[in-house]
Amino acid sequence: MKIEHYIRDIQDFPKEGIGFKDITPLLNDAAAMEAATQQLLALVGDKKVDRVVGMESRGFFFATLLAKELHAGFVPVRKPGKLPFDTLAQEYQLEYGTDVLEIHADAIKPGEKVLIHDDVLATGGTAEAVCRLVERLGGEIVQVNFLMELSFLHGREKLKPYEVKSLLSY
Amino acid sequence: MKIEHYIRDIQDFPKEGIGFKDITPLLNDAAAMEAATQQLLALVGDKKVDRVVGMESRGFFFATLLAKELHAGFVPVRKPGKLPFDTLAQEYQLEYGTDVLEIHADAIKPGEKVLIHDDVLATGGTAEAVCRLVERLGGEIVQVNFLMELSFLHGREKLKPYEVKSLLSY
Repeated sequence: MKIEHYIRDIQDFPKEGIGFKDITPLLNDAAAMEAATQQLLALVGDKKVDRVVGMESRGFFFATLLAKELHAGFVPVRKPGKLPFDTLAQEYQLEYGTDVLEIHADAIKPGEKVLIHDDVLATGGTAEAVCRLVERLGGEIVQVNFLMELSFLHGREKLKPYEVKSLLSY
Repeated sequence: MKIEHYIRDIQDFPKEGIGFKDITPLLNDAAAMEAATQQLLALVGDKKVDRVVGMESRGFFFATLLAKELHAGFVPVRKPGKLPFDTLAQEYQLEYGTDVLEIHADAIKPGEKVLIHDDVLATGGTAEAVCRLVERLGGEIVQVNFLMELSFLHGREKLKPYEVKSLLSY
């Protein structure tokens, strides 16, 4: 199944001049969602994975499915103030200004093998911040994977120390 | 497996005087997450389900897993401005003021059987708004289910026309 047929282009979202890749048609179709899950799993191969980390909010969709299939725990990384227990925070650079992501301090134990997933790799700032959070907890990143990669934004360069995989590249 | 052992009580979150039920320990443990998924599926029984609707953000976790297991499509309901395509919006009452939720206008077709899932049933305002959105698209709600219900808030009363199920009640 060609999952790219289930990605919808939306012009001028979230603001003028931006072309947004909408994954809701992929989620809406049970067979397409399952195919994407299996294709992501194929990227992981036979690597051992203890925890799958997903980024708020669109990263949650496939990160939970991957966790289930890999018999791994699922760990959400969220915007500040959303996680109720003790957290670690990581600041990262935006085009203008900075933003912050948080992870629960007890979510990953030293030495655990961690798969990081998000829907889209754009500039890589978010994914890089998540990698830092995982490593600050002592986790070992086995792969960072994405449904798709906007390769013209060169986000991969920020993630050089890690294995980075995407199902689709634009 | 007793999933209540994986729910953590957090005092004074998100604000003083509120006792928050933290489900991240449940998500963090692969066996517990799988047990909760299977227990939610048992609530659904052999009902036919075409679409599973999950509410931003904590409703997404188990709604995607339920969609996979039921071979159904997954539909996110989100805060305003997050969904990129044509949307329907539904206002609902908060303790002070109002809030709005949105669904994609093409997410559900008339006559489709819909399961609605969220992590917690509190006052029922959010779930009621989601039911309205689903019905405005012509969907037929077969069940509204939750990991847990704060029964002292009587949210069930707002959802009287529907079958409402929860795994845990506090």
